Amino acid sequence: MKVTPWEVSGDVDYDKLIREFGVSKIDSSLLKRLEKHTGKTHFLLRRGIFFAHRDLKWILDEYERGNKFFLYTGRAPSGPVHIGHLMPWIFAKWLQDKFGVELWFQFPDEEKFLFKKDIEFGETQKWLGENMLDVIALGFDPKKTHFIIDTKDAGLMYREACKVAKKITFNMVKSSFGLDDSANIGQIFYTSMQAVPAFLPSVIKGKNIPCLIPHAIDQDPHFRLTRDILPKLGYYKPASIQCIFLPPLSGTEGKMSSSENSSIFTTDSPREVEAKIRKYAFSGGRDTLEEHRKKGGNPDVDVSFQYLRMFFEPDDKKLEQIEKDYRSGKLLTGELKEYLIKKINEFLKEHQKRREKAKTEINKFLFK
Amino acid sequence: MKVTPWEVSGDVDYDKLIREFGVSKIDSSLLKRLEKHTGKTHFLLRRGIFFAHRDLKWILDEYERGNKFFLYTGRAPSGPVHIGHLMPWIFAKWLQDKFGVELWFQFPDEEKFLFKKDIEFGETQKWLGENMLDVIALGFDPKKTHFIIDTKDAGLMYREACKVAKKITFNMVKSSFGLDDSANIGQIFYTSMQAVPAFLPSVIKGKNIPCLIPHAIDQDPHFRLTRDILPKLGYYKPASIQCIFLPPLSGTEGKMSSSENSSIFTTDSPREVEAKIRKYAFSGGRDTLEEHRKKGGNPDVDVSFQYLRMFFEPDDKKLEQIEKDYRSGKLLTGELKEYLIKKINEFLKEHQKRREKAKTEINKFLFK
Repeated sequence: MKVTPWEVSGDVDYDKLIREFGVSKIDSSLLKRLEKHTGKTHFLLRRGIFFAHRDLKWILDEYERGNKFFLYTGRAPSGPVHIGHLMPWIFAKWLQDKFGVELWFQFPDEEKFLFKKDIEFGETQKWLGENMLDVIALGFDPKKTHFIIDTKDAGLMYREACKVAKKITFNMVKSSFGLDDSANIGQIFYTSMQAVPAFLPSVIKGKNIPCLIPHAIDQDPHFRLTRDILPKLGYYKPASIQCIFLPPLSGTEGKMSSSENSSIFTTDSPREVEAKIRKYAFSGGRDTLEEHRKKGGNPDVDVSFQYLRMFFEPDDKKLEQIEKDYRSGKLLTGELKEYLIKKINEFLKEHQKRREKAKTEINKFLFK
Repeated sequence: MKVTPWEVSGDVDYDKLIREFGVSKIDSSLLKRLEKHTGKTHFLLRRGIFFAHRDLKWILDEYERGNKFFLYTGRAPSGPVHIGHLMPWIFAKWLQDKFGVELWFQFPDEEKFLFKKDIEFGETQKWLGENMLDVIALGFDPKKTHFIIDTKDAGLMYREACKVAKKITFNMVKSSFGLDDSANIGQIFYTSMQAVPAFLPSVIKGKNIPCLIPHAIDQDPHFRLTRDILPKLGYYKPASIQCIFLPPLSGTEGKMSSSENSSIFTTDSPREVEAKIRKYAFSGGRDTLEEHRKKGGNPDVDVSFQYLRMFFEPDDKKLEQIEKDYRSGKLLTGELKEYLIKKINEFLKEHQKRREKAKTEINKFLFK
């Protein structure tokens, strides 16, 4: 397996990542503690999709003594948003609602420009506009949500990034990200920009505010470095909460990617979703109907089932029944796929409606 | 000798620098060609203080066919301005007047923060304000002069810097500046920001405009790299014109520095100037009055004479007479120093008056 901020491949062993990255597993006692504040926890937590954290207990300690945190997450625009991208944002929205906190949403519009050979700023700018619509469509509170765009807001961010950069040597970047001497100097500097939203609200408000970052586990190397540096600048170490990757339709290795046509994009039509799921969704079912009825399917490797578990079936009882029926052979792959198609299309219909409406709302979210 | 953008020491051999850096010497035919446009050339040119260039002939070719250039120079604020700093700016002002061109003046207020251990942004910001007064005091045309400040104008500059950065590897920075793996990632990125003003006017005006950079020779590694990159982005290679260093009072090695108390600062009082010149100015005179009268002094190593030649005595005939009298022993070191003190104080009196007035003019110069 390979897990870096720029590449995820192979069969991801999350227990190994927990050890290697040094994050902590979210256990039942932490879930119970969260429940005190949120009521029933989000299914992404209950089902272990958000599975690890750093300093989440400290965030709750501070919250309980009246010191509210803010949320920070982001999106590097370079292509369309797929459903895998939405997971941490949906979770961030839930946290915003339950804790009544601000969200600082970073659009590092230079990142993909710096890391991908063939992409120009014109293209990242186009996707920046498109991607913002998807974020807004999830229903964030515009009064509590601030979009910051690296190139546009550099007048605010670059100075802060320099403060971070002064504390990071090339040696540190080498060991954190595996960059070498052939890396371009924008790539080398970039992690300083990704660190900034973790303390920018503290700079702006002139007081130290705890930060909680919901993110997919591949981004952890950035925030590990950020955590080392921020105390040296007089700010709290940001806390974080990590989710696993939504697998690609082709199977449970790697993660869904913008560059693959088979990914489910937020702008897909019902017919496209139908075709993609039918054609590509890796099945845990048996080769023949007879064998399936007899031996049952395997939901653990069945991508359709996993999508229901990770995203489209919030109802635990319903999910349990589906799992049982699939394992027993009562539910066929085709039926499972039809159910998933229906659920995705219900979600996307609503999302696309909100996405359309979002076109007039961008201004409310831009940080000024 | 050592000549980098961050350190100048030893006995600087300019002919060696010409070979090592690959710049061209300004010869008499080029001076004659300049004269066609400027009338009598500035004494900084005539006396070989501005001694080398890159592509100055091309700048004149373009100018002669109606394609005006713009000037770019700058100042990294971290301390008071001394008279050595003023040399390239005075020359830039002369070029602005003679060619009627725009000047883009960069204040990279992050540079010294990134390269010096103990300096914070609060201090660079204080000096930024002070240093701008010295630039304005030289009489630049506010309609044709634009101050850009890296951290403040990063909203405009950072994106352009990323375009440069994408074309520069750490390997290139290593060989150009001698940085190693222990360099901080802000230092590594910095040269991209210094490249930006060489094409920013072209970006803003949406057409390719030739750029001429008057600067002290130690900054050449930045612009050598800039020249390699800009054509890859579709812009002209910037041309440049280099000056030698004003020596420190202590002798003809190294260059005058902000961090030495004995430097002549633009805010020095007449009494301070008097004391510094009397106490520190290295003399090319003889040990005794008798010996001096007999054998004469050596103006080549006499700092007072060099200051007159490089800055304070624009009158060629007068300077020639002083040199002759000093070499013959007719003029004593004490007399030479008195003359220099008088000239510096005349200059500073006027400069300080204009500097005071500049306090209400900063706004006219800031790029908006």
